[in-house]
Parts: sequence; C-alpha cells; structure tokens
Amino acid sequence: MSDIAPTQRRTRGGGGAARRAERSAVSFETARFIERNIPNFEVLNEEALEIIEHNAETVLQEIGVKFVNNPAALELWKAAGADVDEERVRIPRGLARQLCATAPGSYTQHARNPARNVEVGGKNLVLAPVYGPPFVRDAEGGRRYATMADFENFVKLGYMSKWLHHSGGTVCEPTDIPVNKRHLDMLHAHMTLSDKPFMGSVTEPSRAQDSVDMCKILFGEDFVQQNTVMTSLINVNSPMTFDDVMMGSMEVYARNNQACILSPFIVGGAMAPVSVAGTLTQVLAEVLAGIAYNQLVRKGAPVIFGAFVTSIDMNSGAPTFGTPEASLITYGAGQLARRMGLPYRSAGAFCGSKLPDAQAAYESANSLNMGLLSGVNFMLHACGWLEGGLVSSYEKFVMDADQLGVLHGLAKGVGVTENDQAMDAIAEVGPGGHYLGCAHTQANFKTAFWRSGLLDYKPFETWDEEGARDTQALAAVKVRQMLDSYQKPAMDPATEEALAAFVAERKAAMPDAFI
Amino acid sequence: MSDIAPTQRRTRGGGGAARRAERSAVSFETARFIERNIPNFEVLNEEALEIIEHNAETVLQEIGVKFVNNPAALELWKAAGADVDEERVRIPRGLARQLCATAPGSYTQHARNPARNVEVGGKNLVLAPVYGPPFVRDAEGGRRYATMADFENFVKLGYMSKWLHHSGGTVCEPTDIPVNKRHLDMLHAHMTLSDKPFMGSVTEPSRAQDSVDMCKILFGEDFVQQNTVMTSLINVNSPMTFDDVMMGSMEVYARNNQACILSPFIVGGAMAPVSVAGTLTQVLAEVLAGIAYNQLVRKGAPVIFGAFVTSIDMNSGAPTFGTPEASLITYGAGQLARRMGLPYRSAGAFCGSKLPDAQAAYESANSLNMGLLSGVNFMLHACGWLEGGLVSSYEKFVMDADQLGVLHGLAKGVGVTENDQAMDAIAEVGPGGHYLGCAHTQANFKTAFWRSGLLDYKPFETWDEEGARDTQALAAVKVRQMLDSYQKPAMDPATEEALAAFVAERKAAMPDAFI
Repeated sequence: MSDIAPTQRRTRGGGGAARRAERSAVSFETARFIERNIPNFEVLNEEALEIIEHNAETVLQEIGVKFVNNPAALELWKAAGADVDEERVRIPRGLARQLCATAPGSYTQHARNPARNVEVGGKNLVLAPVYGPPFVRDAEGGRRYATMADFENFVKLGYMSKWLHHSGGTVCEPTDIPVNKRHLDMLHAHMTLSDKPFMGSVTEPSRAQDSVDMCKILFGEDFVQQNTVMTSLINVNSPMTFDDVMMGSMEVYARNNQACILSPFIVGGAMAPVSVAGTLTQVLAEVLAGIAYNQLVRKGAPVIFGAFVTSIDMNSGAPTFGTPEASLITYGAGQLARRMGLPYRSAGAFCGSKLPDAQAAYESANSLNMGLLSGVNFMLHACGWLEGGLVSSYEKFVMDADQLGVLHGLAKGVGVTENDQAMDAIAEVGPGGHYLGCAHTQANFKTAFWRSGLLDYKPFETWDEEGARDTQALAAVKVRQMLDSYQKPAMDPATEEALAAFVAERKAAMPDAFI
Repeated sequence: MSDIAPTQRRTRGGGGAARRAERSAVSFETARFIERNIPNFEVLNEEALEIIEHNAETVLQEIGVKFVNNPAALELWKAAGADVDEERVRIPRGLARQLCATAPGSYTQHARNPARNVEVGGKNLVLAPVYGPPFVRDAEGGRRYATMADFENFVKLGYMSKWLHHSGGTVCEPTDIPVNKRHLDMLHAHMTLSDKPFMGSVTEPSRAQDSVDMCKILFGEDFVQQNTVMTSLINVNSPMTFDDVMMGSMEVYARNNQACILSPFIVGGAMAPVSVAGTLTQVLAEVLAGIAYNQLVRKGAPVIFGAFVTSIDMNSGAPTFGTPEASLITYGAGQLARRMGLPYRSAGAFCGSKLPDAQAAYESANSLNMGLLSGVNFMLHACGWLEGGLVSSYEKFVMDADQLGVLHGLAKGVGVTENDQAMDAIAEVGPGGHYLGCAHTQANFKTAFWRSGLLDYKPFETWDEEGARDTQALAAVKVRQMLDSYQKPAMDPATEEALAAFVAERKAAMPDAFI
C-alpha cells in the first residue's frame, strides 16, 4: 500500500548484537498521515457562519479578553491598536482577523526520521495519542497514579501503532518525577524511544525553552531555526482568559518558529454558553484573540485553530463525551477554521467511562468519526483516553489505535478506475454466482478491505473455546505482545549522549518540586 | 420538547383494575421520527455517480438478472419490453429507471396509535430494531435459541424505548413455534404488545397474505385498502437473483398497496465485487430491477431503495461490520437513492462481536453515525444486533437504543435564534467567569444537552462503591426494570378477540412444520 512507510531499521555500526536485534525484530508498519479524498461535513449555512463571525467580533470589541500577569502582551496589543484597560483587551472589529492572516495555512512538522514528517493543514489529518492524564489503568493492575515507566510504555506503544502518526506529548503524567523536572524525562523519552514527531512542554516558559534546547541537540541548531520540529498545546483558560504560563510558553515557541495549538478548553454549560451557536461564538473570539497575539509575537509562526469541546451533565456536573452537541460544535468550528485558512485541531477518542467497555467505545467512535468528517487536521487524544481524560488506559490505547485504521479507510473515498468499476467481475460471476474466486477478487482482495488487527472475527465456537474473551481481554494480550517485542529505533550515539547530559545537567541545576 | 409525543394511556372502560394500573404505570416517552436539519454526507462526485449509473444500466442490459420460478414475473417483464431468455431478464438501458419513476418519493406508514405514524422519505429517519436472529443473549442466561417469550420481550422493550419509532418485524426467530405458524404469533405480538408501526411476514406469499388479513382486522378493511400499514423486508438473493418466495411476498404487498424494502443483501467480496464502485453498480442494478418489477405489479406502490452492506474478512470468510468500505458504500448508495427520488434503507447497529463489549460498540457507533449522515430514511437493526446478526442481545438492545438519542440530537443541527446566539450570556459572564448560574443557562439547561438514560456519568468513587459496573451490567439492570414495569397499551377488546380468533383459526388449519 502506497500510504505505508517502512519502519526505519538502521543498524548501529553493524555489531553482532545489533544484527541479532535486527533479526529478532517484530516487523511493523507505520501509516502515512491521512490525506482525505472525501469532503468535509458542514452543519452551518452561510447565514449561521456570518452571524457567528459577526458576534465573535462583537465579543472582542465590546467585552474583550483578559491577558493575565502579562504586561508585555498588553504593550503589544496597545501598539497593534487594541483598547487596553488594566488586563482587559478590547479588540476593534476586524483587527484580530487581520492579524491572524499572517499565520500559514499549513506547515511541516519534522520528525527525526524524515519518513515520519507530518504535514499539518489542508486535507490532512495527523493522529496523536492521549495527553495529560495523572492516572493509568490496565486490566491487570487497575487504576493507579501514572509513573515514568508508564510514560515510556505509552511512547513505545505509540511508536509501534501503525495508524498513529505522532508520538504526542504528556501521554500520562509521570507523577514519580518532580513537577519541575518531568518535562525533561518526557521529552527525552519521545526523542529516544520513538522516531515520530512530538510535542513540547507548556507548563512554564522555561520548560518550553528546555524543549527547544533539546530539539537543537536532536535536530541541530540550524535545522531548528529553519524548521518546525514541535507542535505544542496552548489552552485558553475559557471564557476569554489568557494566563501568563500558557502565553509565556507560547511566546517561546512562536519566537522559535515552533507550532502551537491555540485551544479554547470548553466544557459547555460551564466555560461556555449551553447553546451550540453561543459556544462557537466564544470559541471563535478566543481563537481570534489568541492567534492574533501569537502573530504579534512572531508574524508567520505556525499555529493551529484548536477547539477542545465537551458538554456538561446538568444533573451531576460531570463532563460528558460523544454527545451530539459536542459534535455539532466540532463540525461548526471546522468550518470557522477553514474560513480563516488555518489548520484545525479537535476531536479525539473521548469518553467518560471508567472502563474500556461499550460506553467508552460508543463515545469514542462518535468522536473519532466526527473528527474525520469535520476536517480536523491535528487530532490529539486519538487513542488511550479514558474517564474524562483522568486516565490513560493501556487497553484502550491499542483498541482506539486499531480503530484509527477505519478513519484511514474512510478517508480514501471512492475510486472509479476501470479496476474499481469491476465490470469484468460482475460479468464473470453473473446472477446467482459468487465473487470469492473470480479474477478481480484474486487480484484485489489483499488491499480491498480494512482489517482490524485486534477485534474478534472468529466463529463463535472457536471464540468460545479460546475463553470467550471480550475486547479488553484481547487488547491486554496485544499490549503485552507489543511491549515485549519493542525495540528502540536506532539513534546516533553522540546525540543520545548529548541529550542525556543535557537532562542530567538541567536536573542538577534545580531542587525538586512536587507542586 | 416538541419532538416527543406522549405515550397513549387510554383506560379501558374505567374499571378499578385499569385505574390501579394507570397509577402504577411507569411514565415513558416516545420520540417522533427524526426530521434532519443537517445535510447529507456525499462521497461520490458527479463523474463517479454517472459512471456507476451508466454501468448499472449496462449490467441490466447485457448481463441481466434472474427471476427464479416465477413465470408470471417473466410475462410482466416481456410485456414491458425486456428481453427474457429462460429465467434471465435483460432490461434495455433506461427501461428500469423509467418504470421506477412511478414509485412515491415518500409515504406514511400508519400505526394503530396515530401519534406513532411515521413518514418514510425526504429528510426523515425512522428507526426500527434488529431483525432475524435465531439466537438471543443476555448477561444472565448467555447465548441460546430464541423463543416466543423472547420475541415478546423484545417487542415490549421496543415499545418502551424512547428513541425507537418502529416495532420492527422478526426481532428474533421464535424457534419454539412451528415455522409455518410463527408469523401469526409474531404479528399478533406486534399488534397487541405495542402501538408502534410494524413489518409483515415475507417467508411465504401466504404469510404475507395473513399479515395483510390481520391488518384488516386491526385497522379495518377500508383503511388498509387506502393506507400503508406495513413496511416489509424483501431481500435480493445477490448477485442479481430474485427468488419466488421473496418476489411472491412482494407481489402480495404491492397489490395491497403495502410498502416493501427492496434490499440487495451484500457481503462484499462474496455477493459483490471487492471494490466500492463495483458493489454500488451491482446494488443499483438490483434495486432498479426489483423496484421496476414492484411497479409492474402495481404502479405507485410504496417501496424503499434498500442496501444491506457488509464486507468480508478475507482471512476467515467472516462478515465484518463498522468497516470503512461498508460506510463508503452506504454513503454512495444514499446518493444513488436520492437521484432516483426514493426513500433509502441502510445501516444499523451492526457488529461482529460475540458480546456487547467495546468491539460491538465501536462497530455499531461507526454504522449508526454513517446511517444518520448518509441520508437513510428507514434504519432496520438500529438496536439489539449482535454477532453478525445471529443474536438479538437484550443488553445491546437498550445500549443501542440509548445511543439512538445521539442521532436525534445531531439531526437537530445548529439554531441561530437570538436565544441560540447567547450573546447576553457571554456578556453577563465575561472573561474568567462561569456559565453555571447565568440567566441563559438557567433558562435553557433542561433541553440544551442530550443526556444518556443508561451510561455512567458518576464520579469514580461513587461508581467504584456501587460495584464498578461496566455498560453491559448497567444495561442488564435497565432491561429488568423495563420488562418489570411494562404495561400493554390499551386496545379495543373486540379487535383483540378478533385477532386472537384469526390466529387460532389459521393455526388450526395447518399441520405444524419445523423446516
């Protein structure tokens, strides 16, 4: 298949150990990012789009947004023509959109293995794993605080997952490492255990700078000056508040020409109005202000229109996932992003379930399908998310990652070459025959249908004899197989040493902090 | 909510028992069929559509279709201008489409409770339960042959399911009743245990006639002459074979102005080519021939463009569900149906899983979302389907039926009234506030978000204390609650007696047959 790039398997100097590792390596493939050959699904008509765009400008002009603890940002806004009153920034109608116009419509994020580079924007979809959970869960050990060992396991699983294009960022929080040092170990793991692209730290501007410095070691200083090697997640403190930690990290990345996702963080009913149109208005206002500010820091820095959207259960106050209102917002935000000419981030394998059960799968499948059809270009949380994002689930990681293959298949669209038309097959088989043995089937069956690498397709009796396992049980076996057969991608030893030295030096320079 | 019709709760003569039943009745709602306020998702461009339509006509003209054991059908075809060679019917280019033009673009299927009538066609979507499984499964009893008691239970669950608009047909095969008599008990159950619309028998022309005769008792003879009171499932024996049992049943229904779904039955790779375009060509050719024949029997009879589509796992030969190829075919067939101006039947809560687990939910959610977006007007198997259609699952019935609420929410689309725009809320809350208590939220929260009636939204600790139940376990509780609280909808006693007498008389007239 043309969309599959082989896994990089350089030998390191050709020693006997390397050759033995080579021979015993489990073969696996990594798919290229999705290039859609299907249209986007659009729920807003022209009238609705114009109302929402008009209202967002009204919000910026009349209500304004807040930049907290950030005098430099307020100066930039003043100079750009905004009305700044203490920390409140009111932006004249049209100004934010005009400032956003310098952001590129798409960009390349480089990976250390060039075959893993991703193009973010256009008709593309890049899939990245779960981000942020403090807990992990697996079938054997249950739910527990995440550790660095878990973090490394999830990076390994991501590296080996065929349909995942990106190694992600905080695949879980390594709670056994001091808060002020864990970003170093996390970056180090992404850089050494995988060769896919990754995300930088955003929890302090200094940690963003560490991320950039480590990339200079990995890619070379000149390369990082001229290319984008990280895409990092900058959440808006919705409604309409831009805090100094997130903005400070974004400033570091923008100045270094590294990409940011500027992402309103919406639990509808709490951080935004309970209506779809109202939420879209606020999302657009926040994105306009945030991306305009990004471009004030550095014109032309790559940036993504983000929208993390869930709704709230008005009975319990819990966030809910896979709901129709979140889908409508996600579809609509995609239209707003495309009208700004910007890459779009949304969706994910979202669920509120405590277990990787049917609830988890219904909610995740609803979100994944919506993500593909809404024109998302960068999908964080595409696998492994459980319990409203509190938990990274080992089993759900491989379950979702398998389902990402469905998105790849759907995105291919419908071909109508002579071979696709299959008129020879229909003529050969005729009324009442079957196609299993016909020439067209023989020539095409290997690539005709997507096939799960996990789900159960066995006859009932076989399945029953083998223990009547559910999906979670099948996934637990696969997790074990993958981790047991994992092998590090080859890396230049000098680079590896330099990265380790940087991490050691930075850690030694700081006392441990756990909050 | 305006789309909810109250459950009919007539007292029968006002006796004390009836009043007590009334007081203890569990209140439940039934949603009106979906009227989409969102567009359809279309995967075929004009060129692809024209190629497929041209090829389908070529198939009809050059390869032809087979009408088996049906000399009367062959006579009708000859008279209409087709080339009939033994049982092979070759249809000149354009003739079938021309004959199909007399079929209505939409029709009303009447229920005995007029509030449950459904409009099939246009932007509407009518949801009906699983059809055909010989087995049932529940968490307690496992997998076993279905009985009439199971059948009645599924009709009761369907009657009480808020998002289900239709009682369906063979919700499971009552294997404890003789094959030649079970249609009588099945129809009787739909007619007496529910007040939603239902399907007729298609396993013999005489059983189709029994279905019509029972409807005459239920609705009155004149009413049935002038109205459609059944929608029944006529499968094509794909590829391109129309057998005498299915066609004979269809003839009965068409002559009585009752609706049929003319449905190619496709396991891609076995009954159709392994390509999407090739399968769509065959589906269209079969539908054109089948619906043209339906209109030859009676011009103007209501009929639905059907497409049951799965793909095959080329390793094991098992049918697979929720796959991207099946989705592409379903989206494409919807476009072909709309270009014929006909109602469209496809999709369902399809899965291959043996259990109502994550696999079942991923696959079902993929299919349900596709069904909504592909413009399906009548969705059979919308809940309860398990194990490739071999099993009707009690738990999955209520799990899927709950998810049908998501489709209702999505179909609403995005409103942009002043209240929807929520500019007052955004102004009231401002940067850094929250929306939980604001006036707009207070006024709208009750109807703002779809809420599952089944899934777990509880805090982790509560959920854990309550037994850490998965979705299947929660569904098992709900099944029991529903069946325990079921109450028959009121019915005129004379009608009920007449129906029972008809069933008894017909049964007495035949020896039992078990094959």
